[in-house]
Formats: sequence, structure tokens, C-alpha cells
Amino acid sequence: MRLTAKNLEDLARGAAFLGTGGGGDPYIGRLVAQRAIDEHGAPEVVDLSQLADDAAVYTVAMIGAPTVLIEKLVGGPEIELAVAELEKYLRRPADAILPVEMGGCNSMLPIKVAATRRLPLIDADGMGRAFPELPMVTFNVHGIPACPLALANEHGEFHILGGARSAKAAEAMARQMVVHMGGGAGISCYPLDGAQAKRAAIPGTLTLALEIGRAIRRGRRRGDPFAALLGYLRTTDYYRHAKTLFDGKIVDIVRETTRGFAVGRLRIRGFGDHRGDLEVVFQNENLVARLDGRTRAIVPDLICVLDRETAEPITTEGIRYGQRVRVIAASVPPIMRSAEALQVFGPRAFGIDEDFQPIEALE
Amino acid sequence: MRLTAKNLEDLARGAAFLGTGGGGDPYIGRLVAQRAIDEHGAPEVVDLSQLADDAAVYTVAMIGAPTVLIEKLVGGPEIELAVAELEKYLRRPADAILPVEMGGCNSMLPIKVAATRRLPLIDADGMGRAFPELPMVTFNVHGIPACPLALANEHGEFHILGGARSAKAAEAMARQMVVHMGGGAGISCYPLDGAQAKRAAIPGTLTLALEIGRAIRRGRRRGDPFAALLGYLRTTDYYRHAKTLFDGKIVDIVRETTRGFAVGRLRIRGFGDHRGDLEVVFQNENLVARLDGRTRAIVPDLICVLDRETAEPITTEGIRYGQRVRVIAASVPPIMRSAEALQVFGPRAFGIDEDFQPIEALE
Repeated sequence: MRLTAKNLEDLARGAAFLGTGGGGDPYIGRLVAQRAIDEHGAPEVVDLSQLADDAAVYTVAMIGAPTVLIEKLVGGPEIELAVAELEKYLRRPADAILPVEMGGCNSMLPIKVAATRRLPLIDADGMGRAFPELPMVTFNVHGIPACPLALANEHGEFHILGGARSAKAAEAMARQMVVHMGGGAGISCYPLDGAQAKRAAIPGTLTLALEIGRAIRRGRRRGDPFAALLGYLRTTDYYRHAKTLFDGKIVDIVRETTRGFAVGRLRIRGFGDHRGDLEVVFQNENLVARLDGRTRAIVPDLICVLDRETAEPITTEGIRYGQRVRVIAASVPPIMRSAEALQVFGPRAFGIDEDFQPIEALE
Repeated sequence: MRLTAKNLEDLARGAAFLGTGGGGDPYIGRLVAQRAIDEHGAPEVVDLSQLADDAAVYTVAMIGAPTVLIEKLVGGPEIELAVAELEKYLRRPADAILPVEMGGCNSMLPIKVAATRRLPLIDADGMGRAFPELPMVTFNVHGIPACPLALANEHGEFHILGGARSAKAAEAMARQMVVHMGGGAGISCYPLDGAQAKRAAIPGTLTLALEIGRAIRRGRRRGDPFAALLGYLRTTDYYRHAKTLFDGKIVDIVRETTRGFAVGRLRIRGFGDHRGDLEVVFQNENLVARLDGRTRAIVPDLICVLDRETAEPITTEGIRYGQRVRVIAASVPPIMRSAEALQVFGPRAFGIDEDFQPIEALE
């Protein structure tokens, strides 16, 4: 994969799709990555399999409520500072940078850090989508600890969570700290060696995000970005169960920035064949979609709200009354539907009292 | 100073007096120190002036609401862990241990760590009394940063505040983290070199605490511990303005564990010559004493509630309805009454809308 300007646009769009409402603003993410590439050149994108077993792999992302992150200029020195402080703490310089999640912003920031630091960027992540909480990552499913992790903000403040009992304890602590650091912060967590990354990360997700974004763009030229999107998703191993869930107009949006998250629900009134109301509940990311009370798609499967004309993904914080939207649902990589994985990021991990049902089983 | 069993008793009592209600339970502190001395031998107590300028000086204390700390077994491995993690972070082993504050528990825990680690213990501290918040220390008055600091708890969790904008920002962050770590934690903060310690610490306060405790004990044998206490205080440079403020019975106590502090007020109904009600407002430590609404003593001067028979200091969390008490007020070291110092721990730093007035000026 070459990180050209056009590829960055496609990647940001595709990652925003996989972000299912969360993962931050793709526009800001793209600008940050582009600027770093202009200054330092594009980083080399490498396959997981190319990593040496003893390579020091560092992740980087922004943590916080997207409603706050959109107000701050994210992707500044705080993300490099988080990585640098974790390197200093571990006394081990990074050999490669790994995205934690796919999302409009959080898939782009690792590009910036890899470019600035002239390090290879790994074509993989820990979710194959975006999730709101620290434990919700395949690294945790594989028993790799979230700590030590470093948080940093744009004021140059930085802190290390050295050892927490569990990823859940680290999440609760980090979330409070992030609220205190201004609602959003750079984070480098789950430091991995190459062997761990190969075992626990989801390979090829940067390339998949790029291809998803590209399919939408090319589909627009042919007048049907949704057909192109669904067509492409169905060729992939990960997202092949993909379908249109609903078509309509946003008639209600309740969104609250609380506990460091953007939490709420949106309601879509159907158009044409689509009768009734679809409600989507979110915590940064879209969690469950219910048509007149009946579940049609549920986390960890993807629920994506897209502009009805352009198929541009709309993030949680960008939803507003009156938007014409189409909701697409898709399966997640099989590794994310295992019993162990569902314990970590299935419906009950979000307080939804419902079992996971794969979208291909929900009609 | 030799840390014999009898000296430890006196020191705990005297430090509890200087703790003005805060600084933790002297009984627990003494047991923890005694046990460490039994196992490892007593640490050498050294004068500030003996420190080499480049010595690495580490502080150690418990941070949290005393109402919580009294429920936990404090002074376990968490205090050594806090020091060890800060040493690891700074890559500089400790040459000496310095108490942050005088208080029943927090003056004793450094004895344990010094004994366990076979390090000298410095006869000094950063307050000459106890205070509830991180910035409220002479080190901060002298511009020495609170960070990096390490927090640790009895579950082996530990975190480093690497860089905060200010001691105030570090306090707000650490306080939230402590609440999250179980309401109380071991802390090592304000790492100093010997030159900084000599410039910013208050010399001789361990010895003074010991002598205060000893004066009370000896006074008991002669039937008047208060006369002995006041007599001794008046011979010191630091606490020489000392007087009985009030004599009476606790008739009301409102105490709430909130934001990581024990916050409240107590009311004493006067006996004999002492007419009216004395109200004492506290935040871990006693902050202001008002007789029928008129201020009689105010922070940073000492306001100490003692048992009316034995002159045993009573900590905030030990106050209960019906206790017969005598309230003693005393001046603090002159370094703590400077304009810079009053900015950091004068009345307004506690939200009390009143100027500091020295007790010798309040009648």
C-alpha cells in the first residue's frame, strides 16, 4: 500500500465506515496524516507477518469522547509524546507502529507517528473496527495487558499507568484521567512484541479500509456507491455478510457527553419500502439497531450510518436532525465473534441485556 | 534521635498533635514503624544539613481520606512500591527518605520505608504539620515540582504522574486516581536532590514531634499534660505562640467522605470559663476555629483537638459526640507564614474567604 494523497482520502473514508460512528473525524485525521507525509515522507506499510518476533510494537490513538475530540485539534504533539513517554518508561524504542482500531481519525494518527518517527506502519489493528473502551481489543482477548500505557495531552502533560489489575481497571482509571486532561488525550497502550502482534492483531485491516473507501469513491462515479460498497464487502473474508438495514431521515438525536463518552440514541424514520422507525443506540460507536423494537444488528457486528446520496460515513458527533441516511450492517472478522471475544465486546460488555446474534441470522 | 519503642510512642503522639486532626492514625503508624524496626533495625536519623547536595531524596506517605485509611491496613507493601516505582522511573535509587508531613501515620511510614530499605531518615518535612492537598508543601512554595510522582495500592497497582502543569493539576489528577484505587494509596512525590531539600524542607520537625509527645507523656505523670505541652511549645522556634483555645464537650459532628477527603465541622459546647460554642471546620485537617462566629485560629496555624484528661490528640475521624476535649492553637514555622506560603496553604487555598491572622493577634 502506498500512502498517496488519494489513498489517504480513501483510507480515511473506509476507516470511518469501519469506525461505525466512532474513531474520530476522518477529515481531521486525513489532514494530520497528509501533513506529516508532506514533511517526512510516507511511512512504509508492512504486513504483520514481516515483523520480527522480538520487534517492539507501539500503538497510538486518541482516547476520549469524539464530541470533545472534534473541538480540540487532535493529532498534535500529544500522540508522539504518549509514544515517547512509553518508550522511555519501557526503555525500548519502537521498531514499528500499530493502529489500535480502525476509525476515521484513529487509523490516520498512526500514519503521522510512523511518518514523523520514520518507522514502519503495520497493516493490522486490534479491532477491525472501532470500539469505545480500552479492554475491547483482540490483544486483551489474547491476555496481553493494556499496561503500561501512557497518556499525554496538548499541554505537554503525561502520565503512565504502570500496572492495573485488569484492562477494565485500566480503562476506568484512564477514562477519569482523560476527562481530567481535557476530555481527550493521546494514548499508547498494549505495548507488544512482534510475536504477540502476530498472534493477536487482525491482519490487513488498513488495506481493507483503503479498499472500502476506494469502492465507495468509484461507486459514486458510476452512480451507486452503495452497490459498490456492498459488492466489495461481500468479497472480503471479514465483512462479507453485508446488507442495507434501513433507509430514511434522522428524526431524533439524543447525545450526551458523559463519563468521557458520547452516549445517546438516534431515530430514523423510514423512506419508501422502509417502514417504521429504526433506533440506533451508541456509546461513541453504534451498538445496536432496532426496527420498531426488534433487533436488526448488534455489536460487535458493524452498524454504519452513511449519507444517503454519497455513502460518506457519518460519525456519531456529526449526526443531525433531518439528514437523509442509509444504514449498512456487516459482519466482523470471525476472531471477533468467538465466545472469548464476545465476553470482551459483545452486547453485555456495553450493558445491553441481549445475546449476540450475527447479522446473517437476523432478518 | 534513637527510634526506641518509647520514642516511637512519643513521636507518634507528637506528630498526631502536629497533624491537627489529619495525617492518619498514630496507633497504626506506630505499629507499622515498630514492626519494621523489629525486623530490620532502626534507621539512622540524620539532619538535613548532613545531606550531600546531589543526594537522591524520596518522600513517602499515604494519600486519601483518613476515614478510608483507617478502614484499610495502611503502610503495607504499597508505600515501598510507590518509592520503588518512582526510583525505577527516575533511574535513581534513593539515598535518603524524607517525610512530607508530620501526622500520626504519615510521620511514621517514612520510618518503615527507611528501615526496610536501610536508608537514612531525614529529620525534617515539608509542612511542620499536616495538610490535605499535594500543593500544600514548602517544596511547592520553593517552586519544586510535585511530579514525577508514583501512586501504588495494596493490590500492587501503580501509576506514575509524569508531568502535570502544576502541583494543583497533579493534586486534582492524583485525587481522582486515589479514589479509584480504593480511597487511599501510597505516594512518593516531590523527588528532591539534597540541595533542594536543604533549601525547601523544614528542619528538625521529627525531633520536635518527639519532644512534643514526650512533654505530654511526662506532663501526665505530673498531673497536667496541657501545662507541660504548652510549656514545651513555647520553648520552640516554630510553635512558640501556643495557647488553650477552648474547653468543652463535642455536641455535634458532621463528617462526610467526599472527593477523597474527610470534610466536615464539629461543634464544642464550652465548660466552666469557656462560654458559648466553638466550631471547627476541617478538610482532613482542622482549618478554622470560630467562637460564636468569631475566628480564634485559622490555617496554617495549628488547631488541635485533644482529650481533656490525657491531652492525647484526636484525629478528625476519631471525633465523636460527647467527647470531653481541649482545643490548643499554636503558630507554625515562620517559613509557613510568608506571603508565598499563604498563597499555597492560607485560608483562601481552602476556599475560606478570610485573610490569615496569626493566633498571637487573635484574642
